[in-house]
Amino acid sequence: MESFTFHNPTVLDFGKDKEKQIGQHLASHGVKKVLLTFGSDRIKRDGLFDVVSRSLQTNQIEWVEFGGIVSNPVLSKVYEGIEVARANNVDAILSVGGGSVLDSSKAIAAGVKYDGDVWDLFLGKSPITAALPVFDILTLAATGSEMNCGAVVTNEATKEKFAINAPALFPKVSVVNPALMQTVTKDYLVYSAADIIAHSIEGYFTAAVQPHFQSRLVESIIKTVIETTEILIEDPLNYAARAEFAWASTQALNGLIYSGTAGFSYPNHMIEHSLSALYNVPHGAGLSVVMPAWMKWYHTKNPQQFERFAREIFGKSTAIEGIEALENWFNKVGTPTRLSQFNIASSELPVILENVLGNASYFGVADIYTREVSTEILENAF
Amino acid sequence: MESFTFHNPTVLDFGKDKEKQIGQHLASHGVKKVLLTFGSDRIKRDGLFDVVSRSLQTNQIEWVEFGGIVSNPVLSKVYEGIEVARANNVDAILSVGGGSVLDSSKAIAAGVKYDGDVWDLFLGKSPITAALPVFDILTLAATGSEMNCGAVVTNEATKEKFAINAPALFPKVSVVNPALMQTVTKDYLVYSAADIIAHSIEGYFTAAVQPHFQSRLVESIIKTVIETTEILIEDPLNYAARAEFAWASTQALNGLIYSGTAGFSYPNHMIEHSLSALYNVPHGAGLSVVMPAWMKWYHTKNPQQFERFAREIFGKSTAIEGIEALENWFNKVGTPTRLSQFNIASSELPVILENVLGNASYFGVADIYTREVSTEILENAF
Repeated sequence: MESFTFHNPTVLDFGKDKEKQIGQHLASHGVKKVLLTFGSDRIKRDGLFDVVSRSLQTNQIEWVEFGGIVSNPVLSKVYEGIEVARANNVDAILSVGGGSVLDSSKAIAAGVKYDGDVWDLFLGKSPITAALPVFDILTLAATGSEMNCGAVVTNEATKEKFAINAPALFPKVSVVNPALMQTVTKDYLVYSAADIIAHSIEGYFTAAVQPHFQSRLVESIIKTVIETTEILIEDPLNYAARAEFAWASTQALNGLIYSGTAGFSYPNHMIEHSLSALYNVPHGAGLSVVMPAWMKWYHTKNPQQFERFAREIFGKSTAIEGIEALENWFNKVGTPTRLSQFNIASSELPVILENVLGNASYFGVADIYTREVSTEILENAF
Repeated sequence: MESFTFHNPTVLDFGKDKEKQIGQHLASHGVKKVLLTFGSDRIKRDGLFDVVSRSLQTNQIEWVEFGGIVSNPVLSKVYEGIEVARANNVDAILSVGGGSVLDSSKAIAAGVKYDGDVWDLFLGKSPITAALPVFDILTLAATGSEMNCGAVVTNEATKEKFAINAPALFPKVSVVNPALMQTVTKDYLVYSAADIIAHSIEGYFTAAVQPHFQSRLVESIIKTVIETTEILIEDPLNYAARAEFAWASTQALNGLIYSGTAGFSYPNHMIEHSLSALYNVPHGAGLSVVMPAWMKWYHTKNPQQFERFAREIFGKSTAIEGIEALENWFNKVGTPTRLSQFNIASSELPVILENVLGNASYFGVADIYTREVSTEILENAF
């Protein structure tokens, strides 16, 4: 095992009706005025906004609404949020939504405290030393952002989907009420499943140091996601399954499964970021296309671990059988496994390739994901 | 899944040579003077004390030595520690040792800030609202105390082994260097394995609500403990195994595996506390006696989960086969499975029984662990 420092200070308040206490959480942190970030007006129609605003009122907390954040969140909206937050002198951000709203909120939180262009922080031109405190009510379990200090945003101008990461970005309090996720569409449920599986396998397959215990934790997450996704497709109101799905999602990217591992990279996310940056495909759907394509190229680099995956997750005996079983499972639950399913023509390959090569430089893995290798993986995806 | 709030603020600094940074950790928390708690003088002979004192000196931190803390730590020593801490006006405690030193340190930390008898806190007569900050360098992986807010101490006068629990008792920073554990004797290695397995199975078997994901996490811990214990018996210097053992130990009692479960109790610990309070047997050794005895009585209350345990951990098909496999494994690695191995005569049963019944009241499970039931379990242990 490699040396590491584990410190995850986020308070995770998990369960039914927990959103009713958001005002108390904010008040106990001395917050007086928040930027209330969200996506569509759905939260106003389904009653969540009323619950939240009542809780804020009860605790004498003012808010400024900032809606309209979209999936695959964009930099222009982050700029706008920073201006609104500054103009209104808010002292915290309350994100009500999924990972896109939360990641935008983290970027706004860091941007408010930074004198230059917030995109500098994504480019690593300046460290993130301060941020407004972020609180959130999660309505979609997928990205793990509720218990980590990262955020991913797309720069529409440059078609770059890049990330920030800093301890200041850990949410102070994340409210995870699985009942709020019961209205997630079946499509987004299975895209989310693909996202969680991707978070789980990136290190599992690529780490140079991968302790058995960490592999077992990863397998626990994947088995749970597969099991609960199948239950939820049949029975979307199954609270127990919704809860296990959400809790497994949080564990997939809160630092636990990566502790003690070393030398890993995020190739599936790296390649997928090109797809969502260029064609705005849902992140999870892009990942279910990329994963089998990448695995078909990569498995010979770590055959033992791929055999382990095949055996532990699907009861199969060879690496190839395991990859096929995962691809079949994606097909079965209805998340794409080929770029053609997004109506992306094979003539687009050179465009995607250039973006992927840019990402490979950004991720520091250009020596592995060369033009030749990236072409092979993308060809697998067509 | 049940509702829960997860918040574990401890910084876990894990890996080789991490103890060299203890002074920096203390300084970054503004600490100027610590009570340096430890057990035997072994840390002075093996060089650890030198490393720690150098790091303290470099960071201008004074210390007051407080050694002589024993396994199954006792209340009289906690009283003494509180006096020394007060007399020297220390502003933090630095524990260098295993769970006994750390638990004593937590009790001292709470006691210093409490006006009355610190035992009141163990009896629940007063809540713990403040404590000196606790830091630790762990030299034995077993109790999980390095990443939780509990502590267990024995009152020698009343023969009660009771616990405290409060957020103020989370260590600020825990240093876990598996290399420091390479000198743990084979006996204490296997006792520690039993302790970790006990932490893992208490909720696994007794919880009224036990999500599958949490069961998978528990099984990941137990499989890792079994695997690494066997490696370490043959090869005590195997760093990778020592590290996985330690990390699994931390995960067994830091709140993770209990999140979302409900209605569980700690019967094995409850019964074992009587053994170590009365006969000062090593806690883990007591647990390897109690677990099979308790399981033989309890398995019919939760047959599905016992079958799951048998299948997942030992590849067996019935509950009884699973229990026997665990008992055989304890015998194989050399941790006791019968009270006679401690030279406790069967005529002692009534004495143990009275202590167990007292603990059952304290744990709030007197309705389950009646005189009749407790007798049956103890008879299984003889």
